[in-house]
Amino acid sequence: MAERVIINDVGPRDGLQNQAVILDLEQRRALINALVDAGLTHIEIGSFVSPKAVPAMAGTGELAAHLPKQSKSGEPFQFSALIPNQKGYELAMAAGVRDVSMVVAASNTMNQRNINLSTDQAMTVSKAVFEQGREQGANTLAYIATAWECPYEGLVDESVVIRLAGELFEAGASEIILADTIGAACPGQVSSLLKKLAAEYDLSKFSCHFHDTRGMGVADVFAALEMGIRKFDASIGGLGGCPFAPGATGNVATEDVVLMLHQMGFDTGIDMRGLLAAVDLASSYVGRELGGNSINWIRRNIDKL
Amino acid sequence: MAERVIINDVGPRDGLQNQAVILDLEQRRALINALVDAGLTHIEIGSFVSPKAVPAMAGTGELAAHLPKQSKSGEPFQFSALIPNQKGYELAMAAGVRDVSMVVAASNTMNQRNINLSTDQAMTVSKAVFEQGREQGANTLAYIATAWECPYEGLVDESVVIRLAGELFEAGASEIILADTIGAACPGQVSSLLKKLAAEYDLSKFSCHFHDTRGMGVADVFAALEMGIRKFDASIGGLGGCPFAPGATGNVATEDVVLMLHQMGFDTGIDMRGLLAAVDLASSYVGRELGGNSINWIRRNIDKL
Repeated sequence: MAERVIINDVGPRDGLQNQAVILDLEQRRALINALVDAGLTHIEIGSFVSPKAVPAMAGTGELAAHLPKQSKSGEPFQFSALIPNQKGYELAMAAGVRDVSMVVAASNTMNQRNINLSTDQAMTVSKAVFEQGREQGANTLAYIATAWECPYEGLVDESVVIRLAGELFEAGASEIILADTIGAACPGQVSSLLKKLAAEYDLSKFSCHFHDTRGMGVADVFAALEMGIRKFDASIGGLGGCPFAPGATGNVATEDVVLMLHQMGFDTGIDMRGLLAAVDLASSYVGRELGGNSINWIRRNIDKL
Repeated sequence: MAERVIINDVGPRDGLQNQAVILDLEQRRALINALVDAGLTHIEIGSFVSPKAVPAMAGTGELAAHLPKQSKSGEPFQFSALIPNQKGYELAMAAGVRDVSMVVAASNTMNQRNINLSTDQAMTVSKAVFEQGREQGANTLAYIATAWECPYEGLVDESVVIRLAGELFEAGASEIILADTIGAACPGQVSSLLKKLAAEYDLSKFSCHFHDTRGMGVADVFAALEMGIRKFDASIGGLGGCPFAPGATGNVATEDVVLMLHQMGFDTGIDMRGLLAAVDLASSYVGRELGGNSINWIRRNIDKL
């Protein structure tokens, strides 16, 4: 039997929060449903942040109350939500969202600019939430942002990521997602960090999150696969990036990653025709044509996929 | 000192022969000059084929007479030309082109459809030319086309490629270029074939030629790099593909490959600002905007590259 690789589609959160167009709850729900119809079981549905700061994510609690109950494969869903802090954690729990993710950047300046905390302070906040989550049976996912490069500080020291991962696991994080937040890592850097992490931890507890900013997103996924990673974030149609900066691409596209995984003999449980339908739906909502680097080829060959 | 990887830009041949617009000799020469200005030493300048069949390649002999004499680094140039047969070989030699490449497909149907010969017949033709080239001191490069997948026959048996490579070397080919002609290979397939070839031959005599049709071109380059390949075909701006089929992408873009190589610590001798100038020149000639997946990022960050 083919080995399973899990794709966590972050389009409804990481993708939509960066769009010029704000989707209403019904549209956000329809997009999630389209992803579920395509066979996805892992979806980041939104975030519990201030609706003033991020209007695109307002109403995630209400959204969470109306999610599909049954996946196509019968496997359990992981509908996760991003939370910025303790308050976000409480909002998520109140909304019945048991899979929550928190972000700490591996660079001090990034944490300062993003959440006005030092890395140590951000870790203290996150660890407290993870400890509480562990006590309360929540599933807590820890993003290490700018895990390879920071836009302010440049290359990130691998030892910092290794140390943060250890502390986050110790605090109760069930999984660590290494995020190349600005799409800066080349596959050689991906291999290098994962090799060092593998010497310390069980890589089955790691996931990777790449952007295609430099056209290396799929190559980064391949490098991580080679090191043993079996769970990846991706975004339907490459949704994301900043619509005001031409070429500021979003997450690596779900269809690009799934195409490669299937061709390499992995099983994802995902149906390509369903993914195309989700790309088209997302495109119609955001008002521009989405799609990864393989989208035209997929469209032409959909009958064979 | 950083390890050298050679980029052979095939835009002036593989790229231009598939364009709706036919460039005149002065434009073709200007494009080659732009690539030389960017630091490229290896360029496929054209082909010696029937000008009736491929009007875009007419006059390659005249073009060859007016090429730059001195590379930016002082390293010798390899200005190669594609030849289809014995007659093409003679035209190339008469024009003073000493680096010639011939194509044999690893699939019988592809050879039949392309040149109306079986693989055995095509090998006989090629081997005779390579033997002659060896006697006459020419540098003969052998393309194995559809080295991973054929549009008619599907997946190609790796043992066929291994056998053809051996016979071509024996006949005098100085180098074998494994061509994923239709951009079908995933990086796992690239690794697999190269691993088997490495068990039989010296991989330093192999080069790889990928297309970005399925969005895996750069990942394929990475997989080949990991296996030890240090020479790649690429095409400026991703020039190539069929202009009448939307999304029928060309070769993997030179700028995408160079960006990754530099970030991975390899030396190419190529200057990114010069590549951008060549992309812009090629775009102006073919009348549409060229550029690989990283082109927008490169433009925004050119001052740092």
